[in-house]
Amino acid sequence: MIVVMRPEATKKEIEHVANVVKEMGLKPHVITGTDLSVVAVIGDDRKKDKGALEQAPGVDRVVPILAPYKMAARESKKERTTVKLGAGCVFGGKQVPVIAGPCSVENEKQIIDAAKKVKAAGAHALRGGAFKPRTSPYAFQGLGEEGLKLLAKARAETGLTVVTEVLTPSDVELVAEYADCLQIGTRNSQNYKLLEAAGKSGKAVLYKRGMSMTIDEFLQGSEYVLSQGNPNLILCERGIRTFEDHTRNTLSLSAIPELHYRSHLPVVIDPSQGTGHARLVPDMCRAAVAAGADGLIIEVHPDPEHAMTDGAQSITPETLKELIASLKRIAHAVDREV
Amino acid sequence: MIVVMRPEATKKEIEHVANVVKEMGLKPHVITGTDLSVVAVIGDDRKKDKGALEQAPGVDRVVPILAPYKMAARESKKERTTVKLGAGCVFGGKQVPVIAGPCSVENEKQIIDAAKKVKAAGAHALRGGAFKPRTSPYAFQGLGEEGLKLLAKARAETGLTVVTEVLTPSDVELVAEYADCLQIGTRNSQNYKLLEAAGKSGKAVLYKRGMSMTIDEFLQGSEYVLSQGNPNLILCERGIRTFEDHTRNTLSLSAIPELHYRSHLPVVIDPSQGTGHARLVPDMCRAAVAAGADGLIIEVHPDPEHAMTDGAQSITPETLKELIASLKRIAHAVDREV
Amino acid sequence: MIVVMRPEATKKEIEHVANVVKEMGLKPHVITGTDLSVVAVIGDDRKKDKGALEQAPGVDRVVPILAPYKMAARESKKERTTVKLGAGCVFGGKQVPVIAGPCSVENEKQIIDAAKKVKAAGAHALRGGAFKPRTSPYAFQGLGEEGLKLLAKARAETGLTVVTEVLTPSDVELVAEYADCLQIGTRNSQNYKLLEAAGKSGKAVLYKRGMSMTIDEFLQGSEYVLSQGNPNLILCERGIRTFEDHTRNTLSLSAIPELHYRSHLPVVIDPSQGTGHARLVPDMCRAAVAAGADGLIIEVHPDPEHAMTDGAQSITPETLKELIASLKRIAHAVDREV
Amino acid sequence: MIVVMRPEATKKEIEHVANVVKEMGLKPHVITGTDLSVVAVIGDDRKKDKGALEQAPGVDRVVPILAPYKMAARESKKERTTVKLGAGCVFGGKQVPVIAGPCSVENEKQIIDAAKKVKAAGAHALRGGAFKPRTSPYAFQGLGEEGLKLLAKARAETGLTVVTEVLTPSDVELVAEYADCLQIGTRNSQNYKLLEAAGKSGKAVLYKRGMSMTIDEFLQGSEYVLSQGNPNLILCERGIRTFEDHTRNTLSLSAIPELHYRSHLPVVIDPSQGTGHARLVPDMCRAAVAAGADGLIIEVHPDPEHAMTDGAQSITPETLKELIASLKRIAHAVDREV
Repeated sequence: MIVVMRPEATKKEIEHVANVVKEMGLKPHVITGTDLSVVAVIGDDRKKDKGALEQAPGVDRVVPILAPYKMAARESKKERTTVKLGAGCVFGGKQVPVIAGPCSVENEKQIIDAAKKVKAAGAHALRGGAFKPRTSPYAFQGLGEEGLKLLAKARAETGLTVVTEVLTPSDVELVAEYADCLQIGTRNSQNYKLLEAAGKSGKAVLYKRGMSMTIDEFLQGSEYVLSQGNPNLILCERGIRTFEDHTRNTLSLSAIPELHYRSHLPVVIDPSQGTGHARLVPDMCRAAVAAGADGLIIEVHPDPEHAMTDGAQSITPETLKELIASLKRIAHAVDREV
Repeated sequence: MIVVMRPEATKKEIEHVANVVKEMGLKPHVITGTDLSVVAVIGDDRKKDKGALEQAPGVDRVVPILAPYKMAARESKKERTTVKLGAGCVFGGKQVPVIAGPCSVENEKQIIDAAKKVKAAGAHALRGGAFKPRTSPYAFQGLGEEGLKLLAKARAETGLTVVTEVLTPSDVELVAEYADCLQIGTRNSQNYKLLEAAGKSGKAVLYKRGMSMTIDEFLQGSEYVLSQGNPNLILCERGIRTFEDHTRNTLSLSAIPELHYRSHLPVVIDPSQGTGHARLVPDMCRAAVAAGADGLIIEVHPDPEHAMTDGAQSITPETLKELIASLKRIAHAVDREV
Repeated sequence: MIVVMRPEATKKEIEHVANVVKEMGLKPHVITGTDLSVVAVIGDDRKKDKGALEQAPGVDRVVPILAPYKMAARESKKERTTVKLGAGCVFGGKQVPVIAGPCSVENEKQIIDAAKKVKAAGAHALRGGAFKPRTSPYAFQGLGEEGLKLLAKARAETGLTVVTEVLTPSDVELVAEYADCLQIGTRNSQNYKLLEAAGKSGKAVLYKRGMSMTIDEFLQGSEYVLSQGNPNLILCERGIRTFEDHTRNTLSLSAIPELHYRSHLPVVIDPSQGTGHARLVPDMCRAAVAAGADGLIIEVHPDPEHAMTDGAQSITPETLKELIASLKRIAHAVDREV
Repeated sequence: MIVVMRPEATKKEIEHVANVVKEMGLKPHVITGTDLSVVAVIGDDRKKDKGALEQAPGVDRVVPILAPYKMAARESKKERTTVKLGAGCVFGGKQVPVIAGPCSVENEKQIIDAAKKVKAAGAHALRGGAFKPRTSPYAFQGLGEEGLKLLAKARAETGLTVVTEVLTPSDVELVAEYADCLQIGTRNSQNYKLLEAAGKSGKAVLYKRGMSMTIDEFLQGSEYVLSQGNPNLILCERGIRTFEDHTRNTLSLSAIPELHYRSHLPVVIDPSQGTGHARLVPDMCRAAVAAGADGLIIEVHPDPEHAMTDGAQSITPETLKELIASLKRIAHAVDREV
């Protein structure tokens, strides 16, 4: 960190800061500039409350320098991480797998139908929510364990691996029993007890960025999973909250190259949550693949007009089929494969 | 809701929408305008997936009309809700109680010292974290149950009621044993399993707004507590995430009159989280009281420069004392009492 | 518009609203719902101050229904608009032209060198600022008319058409004399006097979205140009301001399909301003073309490390060359041409 | 500035950065940390393109240290700036003047009536727009010079000083002839040619923060006025653009103490634009005064329901009267005067 002193800070105030730094077990280095002085701090200050120094007299502000994460950082691991959900579904390599399926598991007919159709359209994994975090307590909350069983049945019938959300630590074991990959949703992106539990499970984790999470906070959240000894982590950008009101969220595709620059983890894009409108999903899928995404997760419903949840943003299996055809061409153009 | 049709929508498309509305058990009402038509939907559509209609041919968008919450709405309850934490500490009435204390319980000496000093300065309740949700897994995570015991001890010595955070449903019972009020933090603002568990406990709940939660989502989150039969709910605005970088968050004080307009629940302000800098806290406390806040929650540390967490935004007990003196004058000016 | 009444609104209050609507020369239509009533307003209310009705007793809020723009709307014009800057540089058709060049014209050698190199790399038009809107009054403000002359010289030597920014109405004539296309920058996106002057000039206009402009406001701003009888308007998404701090702005690529859905105007993407980091530019260019962009505007500097402005986000001519090769493949995959 | 090197940066790369810094006429200072090295740059780098260094091999990012403004900075001027619009209307001292009046001058009767009523209610200056920057070209654009004449007439009749907006440099002289204070609106907050022209006029300037301007950018914009030798500058916070949709903007009251900390300029609050709803205005006025605001600018209309512009956010003269009574009490509580 760099402690920036006020222009009018006294020599004594600068010395005091240097002393507090020493007390922290770190090494201060005072630099006297033309307008003001700064105290550069040498050593690993990741565990310190850097802000506290702001309260020392004469201090203007404290600027962090070290990345606040370690295991997720590119420096910590030379080769890119790959996460394999099953044969033919690997994230982080040449392949760009497509996870597709309905927002919620509604009933047996719907999920089996959806699974068969997304499989036929070319998808590599099945998504579907059994436990749904709903903004309103009066909305459909998912089928729970019954939904998990139906997902397992859909897997048995199609061979697709299954990705589904878990909402609370005490459900991790149950969900892990049925699913191939645990999804941590945006609303739980800073539910650290859940991240830890998912980390401990050893299962692959699809971790969605919080809707107002910075890149640094996203990678710090990742450390909660990685530090439990679980390397099977997939990051997912799903749109951030901004002033834009024509879309449900603002899908930030520059997160793909930026996360690749900062980290070794694979990056999946969710254009359904990211836009909130089915009409915008295909173009955003194409953009994601062109920008280097390591996978896509897309809401697909056999009958979006009658979907119980997220109907507005679900595309049909027919649209998915056409979409995957164009994604194959784009992937080829950037030396990847869908 | 209002279904807005595209200008070029056909009569058949409009009829189709009307039929889907009927299938939902609601009543459609078509209005033909000069530029386009809309289908107004009559009936309680709160449990429906309104978005799905966006997928019907000829539809441009769906505009919700009904507030998505019920029990939190002003209409549902004529008189304002009051929440009593103890004698002399009531939120929602004439009094504007001050909850003060350190970010974290660090050790016995620190919390007892802090409690005595905030009491002497005029505070009405003690805050202090035993379970801390930290952005980094490597940062201090709180003392856990040991911290709860120290808080109880501080209460015994000072008579201050205790507000402390709970992070996960399985800890609710434990925390409720020691605390007078359960805090749900901003990172868990959409952890619905936790909100439900806190609702079931029957304890008073201080519910912090998520950093990117709209007012509607905040009141919907409240329904998760209220619908468990627990009316002892205090809302807390603690700053929202914006592009502003001179403050940790942007404290939105207009949330006070807006929440009072929409809801019957008391509204507390957290200027410490809301600004991130101790130097901004006193003015924001004064502003909050002048704007009609029903309470304040302020980080106060006997030695902010050496605080283990949130040092930058903690004021000293001496500052608190002066601050409360000025708050009393402002409260008097708006016919309230601190 | 729809006037939403409070649940407790009286019959008299609803009648009063209906009367005010009639006074406005519009037709009210009262709909009585189960929870509340709304007054739907029939007729073109675009010129009315809709908000004023919010002040009528019993009104909760006013929801606009009609798009606030007309000439920019897709309904007003069946075929997509094409804007031709010169032979081989048409926006809005099958081609996806690339505008490339330095942020600022620094001197003759630099701009001629840049022009030749971007031409050789495959660009279709030259960008370069002669008048620069700088956040700081102490920063380099551009060469002014001298810069315009150098741009004209670069055009003469390379055949590239020239796009350059104009900052104030009184400069429009001067800039139009030298340039093929007037750029209105993000800081002037709501400088309506400038938009009008550019509209009157009849020259092609590249209109950048304001950094906190909604899609509706962007299209409303477009009306200031179009309503002067100038149809040669190109929209440009260049990133919006959000909480994300790893990028200078957040490039919102979903604006491409959304603007295409709402309007007939061509949409160009500026990934340099949109990200602020040269390392992110190529992937965002690829994403933009895959998402259906009608053009790109890219900052390219022969020696970014010594650029006078925007060095961090300028790519080299060598990078541009490789980039255009991959853009050609992606364009082909989506049935376009670079 | 501090140049942060990548952890894997080589010695040669660090030396290269040091050399580029020297070429800039500045002094590099290399600090070798445990995880990475930084190059601290000594000297006034305000006029340099700091970003360019990001392109040097091995560089991760560049962190600015010096405030990017000089004349607006607290360091440059010990005492606080006061701006006097007339006898009994001074900003920046003990008084907290209230500027009140309609959004637009609509006709003689309306503005004279409004002026008399706000005067009677206790206001110190009159606001009213003659040139209106409207999001839509079809909306009422103001009466122009005729409006200025009516404002002058209202001043003659009431003795109130007049604040009114100017939209473009060529109008500055005209507006300055009639007005006591030129308002630069939020849409023109980065219209630097206009800021310069206003600076040159020597008239008092009320400068509104752009809706997505950071504090640093706001103070940099101020330099455009100050550097023309015009010290009569009043800053105005009027709400920033965020995801919040219950208010037109998010009024950031922490900007008051932060601007006072960083600058010597007076700070006025606009709660009308800041909230967009008349019902929220009084509480935000009270909050602003309690937080240390140096003035208020409030939209007041004799008949808001029929206002031509901004009806939703205009309070009545009767509300203003009651409001000012409570503001006097709050001002007294914080040792100020309304």
